[in-house]
Amino acid sequence: MDRVRVSILGATGLVGQWMIKLLANHPFIEVAGLSASPGKVGSKYGDVVHWFIPGDIPEYVRDMVLVSTDPADHKTVDVVLSALPNDVAWSAESKLVNAGINVVSNASPERMNPRIPLINPEVNWEHLNILREVKNNWIVKNPNCTAAIISMPLKPIQDLIDALHIVTLQAVSGAGYMGLSYLAIDGNVIPFIKGEEEKIDIEINKILGKQFLDRYEPWSRPIYVTATRVPVKYGHTAVIHAILNRDTDANQIIERLRGFRSLPQEKELPTAPREPIKVLDRVDAPQPARDLDPMAVSVGRVVTRNNVLRLVILGDNLVRGAAGITILTIETMKALGLL
Amino acid sequence: MDRVRVSILGATGLVGQWMIKLLANHPFIEVAGLSASPGKVGSKYGDVVHWFIPGDIPEYVRDMVLVSTDPADHKTVDVVLSALPNDVAWSAESKLVNAGINVVSNASPERMNPRIPLINPEVNWEHLNILREVKNNWIVKNPNCTAAIISMPLKPIQDLIDALHIVTLQAVSGAGYMGLSYLAIDGNVIPFIKGEEEKIDIEINKILGKQFLDRYEPWSRPIYVTATRVPVKYGHTAVIHAILNRDTDANQIIERLRGFRSLPQEKELPTAPREPIKVLDRVDAPQPARDLDPMAVSVGRVVTRNNVLRLVILGDNLVRGAAGITILTIETMKALGLL
Amino acid sequence: MDRVRVSILGATGLVGQWMIKLLANHPFIEVAGLSASPGKVGSKYGDVVHWFIPGDIPEYVRDMVLVSTDPADHKTVDVVLSALPNDVAWSAESKLVNAGINVVSNASPERMNPRIPLINPEVNWEHLNILREVKNNWIVKNPNCTAAIISMPLKPIQDLIDALHIVTLQAVSGAGYMGLSYLAIDGNVIPFIKGEEEKIDIEINKILGKQFLDRYEPWSRPIYVTATRVPVKYGHTAVIHAILNRDTDANQIIERLRGFRSLPQEKELPTAPREPIKVLDRVDAPQPARDLDPMAVSVGRVVTRNNVLRLVILGDNLVRGAAGITILTIETMKALGLL
Amino acid sequence: MDRVRVSILGATGLVGQWMIKLLANHPFIEVAGLSASPGKVGSKYGDVVHWFIPGDIPEYVRDMVLVSTDPADHKTVDVVLSALPNDVAWSAESKLVNAGINVVSNASPERMNPRIPLINPEVNWEHLNILREVKNNWIVKNPNCTAAIISMPLKPIQDLIDALHIVTLQAVSGAGYMGLSYLAIDGNVIPFIKGEEEKIDIEINKILGKQFLDRYEPWSRPIYVTATRVPVKYGHTAVIHAILNRDTDANQIIERLRGFRSLPQEKELPTAPREPIKVLDRVDAPQPARDLDPMAVSVGRVVTRNNVLRLVILGDNLVRGAAGITILTIETMKALGLL
Repeated sequence: MDRVRVSILGATGLVGQWMIKLLANHPFIEVAGLSASPGKVGSKYGDVVHWFIPGDIPEYVRDMVLVSTDPADHKTVDVVLSALPNDVAWSAESKLVNAGINVVSNASPERMNPRIPLINPEVNWEHLNILREVKNNWIVKNPNCTAAIISMPLKPIQDLIDALHIVTLQAVSGAGYMGLSYLAIDGNVIPFIKGEEEKIDIEINKILGKQFLDRYEPWSRPIYVTATRVPVKYGHTAVIHAILNRDTDANQIIERLRGFRSLPQEKELPTAPREPIKVLDRVDAPQPARDLDPMAVSVGRVVTRNNVLRLVILGDNLVRGAAGITILTIETMKALGLL
Repeated sequence: MDRVRVSILGATGLVGQWMIKLLANHPFIEVAGLSASPGKVGSKYGDVVHWFIPGDIPEYVRDMVLVSTDPADHKTVDVVLSALPNDVAWSAESKLVNAGINVVSNASPERMNPRIPLINPEVNWEHLNILREVKNNWIVKNPNCTAAIISMPLKPIQDLIDALHIVTLQAVSGAGYMGLSYLAIDGNVIPFIKGEEEKIDIEINKILGKQFLDRYEPWSRPIYVTATRVPVKYGHTAVIHAILNRDTDANQIIERLRGFRSLPQEKELPTAPREPIKVLDRVDAPQPARDLDPMAVSVGRVVTRNNVLRLVILGDNLVRGAAGITILTIETMKALGLL
Repeated sequence: MDRVRVSILGATGLVGQWMIKLLANHPFIEVAGLSASPGKVGSKYGDVVHWFIPGDIPEYVRDMVLVSTDPADHKTVDVVLSALPNDVAWSAESKLVNAGINVVSNASPERMNPRIPLINPEVNWEHLNILREVKNNWIVKNPNCTAAIISMPLKPIQDLIDALHIVTLQAVSGAGYMGLSYLAIDGNVIPFIKGEEEKIDIEINKILGKQFLDRYEPWSRPIYVTATRVPVKYGHTAVIHAILNRDTDANQIIERLRGFRSLPQEKELPTAPREPIKVLDRVDAPQPARDLDPMAVSVGRVVTRNNVLRLVILGDNLVRGAAGITILTIETMKALGLL
Repeated sequence: MDRVRVSILGATGLVGQWMIKLLANHPFIEVAGLSASPGKVGSKYGDVVHWFIPGDIPEYVRDMVLVSTDPADHKTVDVVLSALPNDVAWSAESKLVNAGINVVSNASPERMNPRIPLINPEVNWEHLNILREVKNNWIVKNPNCTAAIISMPLKPIQDLIDALHIVTLQAVSGAGYMGLSYLAIDGNVIPFIKGEEEKIDIEINKILGKQFLDRYEPWSRPIYVTATRVPVKYGHTAVIHAILNRDTDANQIIERLRGFRSLPQEKELPTAPREPIKVLDRVDAPQPARDLDPMAVSVGRVVTRNNVLRLVILGDNLVRGAAGITILTIETMKALGLL
């Protein structure tokens, strides 16, 4: 298979580090460039990164010299992966696209742009098909980490759902490495995450809807979300109470969740989980400290009562919710001949 | 005012310790006896208790000699407060009642007994009126800690509610001092608490319903509950999505919550919070580490969208949810002339 | 008693907030001014402070308008309390002194200046006597929080000590409110705190030594320190192995520690702990979560073996170690007629 | 190589689980039996174990039927590994030895028995040589977890040391899975671990001494230890201040530590770390959350001042300190022809 050459924007941040880690020894994606904030450009990655994720810095990036986000520094790659902070992302990303460079981005700006596909590969890879009609260059966005995790188990039961009540218990790493001080969150629950509830609502509705060349048709279900931060390092938990359009046996739901497979599984893409939705039988599952899977979403406590379905779900906010989903998007696009 | 003499069953446990602390210097309730498990009977309280709540052991109990739970050891008190573990509670409590001794109990057995009032004073003190017709002795139960906290802010908006979706984030102390090991819960969320969800559902329905001499009429609203345990020491948080029977402005809800006063406030009972429901304006409130009030329930993030109301509430599981509610029940009964 | 009018520099920081809290309702110290960083000058304190210490903002400061650190803004006070960050402290403090304004400061620069007394009131209030000979204005420094806590129990046994081995387990709040992220310190030990070990060594040697007008004579004992950060919010623990110059019974040590009283106790100063060193009998004391006293130092595990004495000590890094020590210094100077 | 058949006593506990995990796919040690407390005997391991260590239960043990600790149940194995609780260990272990079965044990009783070798393989594998002269069966003990970790970096600098001051910061898992409740240790330091300080002192002196057939000659250095428990899940940290018999450059110490290799390394035993002592250059190393190695001891902050050497060391209390050391002991005995 042809290799895909990529560069990574925001390579020293938490998501950038995970991208680098996940791409070490990738069968066909090759990291050809790393960019960081202006003060670090010109330095070797290993000299300036404060590596804080588990394991050592992969050898292959230690001596790579950091470049800027300017298009001139990314001429030779097939696609740029953006893990930029939200406040600077769009300015850099749009410059790249305008200069003829394709981008897959984790950053939030323009996710709801009607012409930009918002991709969670197993859930809505079909939305990528509009790129076949796009004349020039494109940008593809990945969803908010929580929307990425939640939309997965909703996909196979989408037709049953009238409305959703969601409460999230989100890990501290979702706010970045320095995002929350120990004094603020240890032994505490903070029942507010700026902008998060709106993103979860509208992004899930976009992902589960239809995408056309110049517009999208949302799923149009009311999604009531309360987002909280809990003292957990890695792994977002969400409790979902789904109002179904008909009484449904919990076993039927479990069967649909367990049986769910999509293009990434069929094509056996390297980063795809074999079983994208893991329904756990333990009565007290899923727990971030015990059940976290990098790319699959874990589901437990599946119960129906009247027409209300309850699911407790858990996903890795940095892998499935950020670095991994971007890489799986690239792999999916390659499999579809779009790269 | 006449003094009320009480004894405390389960005096060495977490709830018993809080009762002792709250009753130090009480204006009219006097602790006349303490009982603990058989192995400790005959010892001085201060010698055998492993005191683990904040502050020192109150002087007044240090030298009290522990007694058994047998009726013979409680002949001289006006009422026995039970903080016994659930597995031994009913056997001891029913023996006391049969021997002619009144009991107010925190333990869960027989809370749903149709002839036993389940009391959260501000919410349903009227249920105590059936005791005027009870010929012999009585037992009064206090609700599950989470039901006690949640039923408070529901009271003033009860008429607006059709159904409830509740997700709790409960503190570790709810499981007792040794209830959860550090390895099990630190940095983790455990989305299951045995028996809790059922209790919250049926107890709230009893508290918000009507009590007759030999039966109760439940509120009869569907309450869908998911209970989780989070690494917080003290303070249960609950996220409530209430389905209202009509679109309602959030300000109207806030007004009702803030304006709520009940008998304990009118009678200025010593343990009653002046303002039983505190609506906080801070966008990220309530937080257990910052906003915990011993007897009031804190409320934040009050929003309505369509006919869905969202509240995030917080209460002290050991005080409002256990030791304090029992004492406030005694005070309320005294004010009603029932003691 | 005449009132002492003070202003507080760095009033919005963690130490500044504690000063404000401790000075609410002080019998003779009155807060007449608050200063903060330039961007906040002119705003009301209550509008710009992010209040993160326990309890609410004291009413008396809510509407105070923040001023700069310029001498012109502090003309009417008797003494300025500095809780400034170390990098900006000396520049502001020396301007004030040069303009004829006295300063008591928590900030580290110039603590080892031979002409500046470094004061832990119970331990070396006599060092303040040099101010009687100072012609112009003065600055008094308070020690590093850990040096403040450790020097207290050393004072009454100072004559027995040849050398010290100290390992500290320091609370996160010592690094300031945003000092350490949850991801960095939760479930972790960081065995390094920049500059801390040197400060503890030389400051203890200055405090336990002699102060003359233009120089000081250090105690001159080797103090080997290893400083670590542990996931505790408040309260620095230190394990001390003291090499004694003669075999000494532990009970003699305990007697000296328990009997220690100094000028602040004799004068019954408002902020002075009645018993400055609390020797605890519990075998597993002192613990930050159970035994923290705001102004006293708690001591446990007192054992001697051969000529080695072991003490485990605990003190409140924000009160005894910072805000409280500054206030006690003012009170002591007032009692000495120096203010 | 001939296979070694072993059985594991205490197979459902924390250390037993680690032994099972480490022995999955071992090149020559084969688990032929698992024993647990009487109530579980006869059940399948997978049905009764509460598996709480990372990863899933290894498939190979799921269906193994649990046996008792009676010698009759261990007739066919070459050696029994004991991870029994201390209070029942010696009774079971001595019965096995008396019945002609060899035992390697982690449990503390009889570690100081002058006829029993106390083995930390890299440090004192020579002590095993006495077994060549033992006529009947033998029992070999492994040290306390902290003594195992600390004795490693002392070995290559043993000749320089006159005395030791040690402060440990030990992980919660050292007390077993249920050993410490969240309420007791979260956000806290407990400066006392029953019996620990004595064990560390005398066991290190035995390990670094000489072993004869019927007695041992201790190293005879005074070791002053203070043991504390900190809110860390895995990994014991120790701060060591060593009094050297001569001034020594830190670089010489580092060279000796880095260069240390022993029999397990020379024989390339499967569980032996290639580099048993890892000296880390990062100024804030070693940290349990970042630097924990299963079998090697990490060392940082190596400094000498006068004749005092400071080391901060970190080791995995469950692997190097317990399950792994037992397995490495078996491998070492095999390499020596003693098994």
